[in-house]
Amino acid sequence: MQQLPETTVNRLPVYLRALASARADGLTVVSSQAIAARARTNAAQVRRDLSYLGELGTRGLGYGVEALADHITRALGLTVPRRVAIIGYGRLGGALLRYLRDPERGFRVVAVVDSDPAKTGSRVGGLMISSDADLDRALRESRAEIAVITTPAAVASGIADRVCEAGVKAILNFAPVSLTVPDDVKVRQVDLTVGMQVLSYHLEHGATTPVA
Amino acid sequence: MQQLPETTVNRLPVYLRALASARADGLTVVSSQAIAARARTNAAQVRRDLSYLGELGTRGLGYGVEALADHITRALGLTVPRRVAIIGYGRLGGALLRYLRDPERGFRVVAVVDSDPAKTGSRVGGLMISSDADLDRALRESRAEIAVITTPAAVASGIADRVCEAGVKAILNFAPVSLTVPDDVKVRQVDLTVGMQVLSYHLEHGATTPVA
Repeated sequence: MQQLPETTVNRLPVYLRALASARADGLTVVSSQAIAARARTNAAQVRRDLSYLGELGTRGLGYGVEALADHITRALGLTVPRRVAIIGYGRLGGALLRYLRDPERGFRVVAVVDSDPAKTGSRVGGLMISSDADLDRALRESRAEIAVITTPAAVASGIADRVCEAGVKAILNFAPVSLTVPDDVKVRQVDLTVGMQVLSYHLEHGATTPVA
Repeated sequence: MQQLPETTVNRLPVYLRALASARADGLTVVSSQAIAARARTNAAQVRRDLSYLGELGTRGLGYGVEALADHITRALGLTVPRRVAIIGYGRLGGALLRYLRDPERGFRVVAVVDSDPAKTGSRVGGLMISSDADLDRALRESRAEIAVITTPAAVASGIADRVCEAGVKAILNFAPVSLTVPDDVKVRQVDLTVGMQVLSYHLEHGATTPVA
């Protein structure tokens, strides 16, 4: 498979969710229009994105829900659940742990780390919360592939350095701080307020374009 | 000001965060390169996006940090804090409430609603948690502009219908379900796992392109 455009990669998870919703509605075949309606985009965009994955649909019939979901899951590298470490077990860390327990999402939480001695040593979701001091060992022993950082901003950079030193190649960062990492480590920054700021723009300017 | 492309609108909050980080580092003037480095994009993209806001930078000198932050804040309609209602006060709702308490973010939580009788009536962050049954009144009395839905998926659609009936025109939806709303209501869907799925793609395919 060719390298996909980043914008297409960003939309594949949304299509996967659209297919899960179609499946929940009892559908076995969907049109690009039906996917687009659920994914809040247009049918041409759906067809263009999916064309990168190969010849999947049947003209006039649409896409088989299961076959397409399998293809996207494979493209995203999620056929085997990715091993995730949650670093920072506060409210957001807790919400993520619950969220990821749904096996449909394609992830498995293998380590939870926190700096609060009141939390470390206790068990959540079948895992023992490791102490901050044991971060390196927790990441190595759990063979974590993705580190999710939900710590306060002040400590996130130091945590990220240690995550990289432990050999983890992907970081999802919820801390409101920009991380500097080696070139071979991928970082994705999540700011829970970006969506709200974009909505504010549309409230201000009365947009007529759809909001993605 | 002209209507901005949706992709530009999506990047403005990221530039705003980059400017806050530059300010924290003691800078008063920044180049497009410096913004780009903090925003994980390239300088040409920054210049193109910012050119929509007017003639802001000085060639060879860069942008004034405060002036540019003011411009972006105004473009996003955040000069007066937007009034936000949080519907569903679980772990994620609690994390958001804390997050939004930072006045720099440009929001003010004016209502918190939950269906759990053990929670309703108690106070969080100076607000009383309203009961689910009082949703309509809570939204109207607080004059909420943006409703953040963090309820379980099963009830999110019903909540969204009531939010729209109460006259709220913007919804940030964290529930993993696609909402159907009237044309004049803007919805933004946030899936906490999308970022992880995109990282999985890069782990699988060893991308050489930067991850946004």
